Amino acid sequence: MNEPRFTYPVRIYYEDTDAGGVVYHANYLRLMERARTEWLRKHGYELDDLAHNDNLLFVVGAIRIDYKKPARLNDLLDVSAELARMGRASMEVSQQVLRDHEPLCAATVRLVTVHADTFKPKPIPTTMKQELASWMPS
Amino acid sequence: MNEPRFTYPVRIYYEDTDAGGVVYHANYLRLMERARTEWLRKHGYELDDLAHNDNLLFVVGAIRIDYKKPARLNDLLDVSAELARMGRASMEVSQQVLRDHEPLCAATVRLVTVHADTFKPKPIPTTMKQELASWMPS
Amino acid sequence: MNEPRFTYPVRIYYEDTDAGGVVYHANYLRLMERARTEWLRKHGYELDDLAHNDNLLFVVGAIRIDYKKPARLNDLLDVSAELARMGRASMEVSQQVLRDHEPLCAATVRLVTVHADTFKPKPIPTTMKQELASWMPS
Amino acid sequence: MNEPRFTYPVRIYYEDTDAGGVVYHANYLRLMERARTEWLRKHGYELDDLAHNDNLLFVVGAIRIDYKKPARLNDLLDVSAELARMGRASMEVSQQVLRDHEPLCAATVRLVTVHADTFKPKPIPTTMKQELASWMPS
Repeated sequence: MNEPRFTYPVRIYYEDTDAGGVVYHANYLRLMERARTEWLRKHGYELDDLAHNDNLLFVVGAIRIDYKKPARLNDLLDVSAELARMGRASMEVSQQVLRDHEPLCAATVRLVTVHADTFKPKPIPTTMKQELASWMPS
Repeated sequence: MNEPRFTYPVRIYYEDTDAGGVVYHANYLRLMERARTEWLRKHGYELDDLAHNDNLLFVVGAIRIDYKKPARLNDLLDVSAELARMGRASMEVSQQVLRDHEPLCAATVRLVTVHADTFKPKPIPTTMKQELASWMPS
Repeated sequence: MNEPRFTYPVRIYYEDTDAGGVVYHANYLRLMERARTEWLRKHGYELDDLAHNDNLLFVVGAIRIDYKKPARLNDLLDVSAELARMGRASMEVSQQVLRDHEPLCAATVRLVTVHADTFKPKPIPTTMKQELASWMPS
Repeated sequence: MNEPRFTYPVRIYYEDTDAGGVVYHANYLRLMERARTEWLRKHGYELDDLAHNDNLLFVVGAIRIDYKKPARLNDLLDVSAELARMGRASMEVSQQVLRDHEPLCAATVRLVTVHADTFKPKPIPTTMKQELASWMPS
């Protein structure tokens, strides 16, 4: 059986925290970007190659994020990425930040594919759609 | 007539941008935090006083953000903050990032009030509720 | 008499702090970038115009920074910028972060001017040299 | 023979870059903090334990950093950390960011050990001094 959910480990450093003693709320989005990038890399896609060779850029179109419990300095977390929906020039990725399998926050990130030079929408290449969709939870 | 929507000017520097040539998506949340803080300050509330004197912390509970157009290096933007809903120990703030009155992104930020030491929910003080609600759009 | 030292006010938000309860050490460099940008703007130079119209980019070549006292959440600080040395394709800017006229940290930032497309050194335009040097402390 | 120089791999994401198309200068300090933390962990020291159990905080006292070549999106880099000097309540760590063994930037970071609650200097514990010094290049 195929494991549909990709996870990537991240460590929390001072750079990620704020004076409340916890991870600064906007920084969870940085952790999620790392996991999405590694998820695409696992599928064979490198963001710099896509930009330079295919003139393709992934742009964040919308985010819905819920914060449940705070992460703290030195925590070793897992960040998941899972394709939730695939469109013509967009997709939705479902992501969680977990500590010992407990979700600390959960997000749905809508990505839009655009031409790297003009920022106009550009359809997701068919092979990429097939590759990514092959991991979509059924 | 009272202007219900508070706005705060922010300038975009290299620190805010990314290699796509535009403002990094997570950094809009930083700009919005600034505007919320200045909005509370305008109402007479200082976050450090609230934490130390009233043991009160505002924690981000959820965000829904839509990105419409990218902001760029050196842009001078306005960030708005407006109370959308008031609860017992939470509130929703409606925010936009604008360039020449055009919204570049729009968000609803749910804030939860907690005890600064325990992070357990703490009701919003009555006087603060009245003060902030007096600006709520009718 | 001309005031040789330019200062720019900055407010400290949660985004700037870390779990030590103070401003994260790398973030003072962000505050200093803001002051340098505003210092250049005061002299009539806009970084995006210089990049697009003059193919000129300021790149940080070296920094020497000393941290004396920590800045904290909600502090209102001044960041100074003052030309310390001018070279052919480089300059040194002396900067401080101050709270109530007390320096919290002090830095010397070496800037190198490069072609925006190739990153190869590009001499500072003569008019810019004269304009900036006119403010150099004698 | 003992390898005196610890290195830690880091990947460059959009979060690390700026509109110049390269890594934002202040963000190299974030990468270096990660390597220093992992270097201390390798010696058996966890920053959160030191803060909570030993009331010991490492604070950055000074940095000297030279930028040679820019790192770019998607680069896989190594960040080194090596003890350069050990004092009573301070130490200097020599660090580099490398791409394929080529140094992109080099820094000397002076760390000061302080009481976590008062920020007053606190001598480095003897056992830590011995442990860390055992790796100092001879």
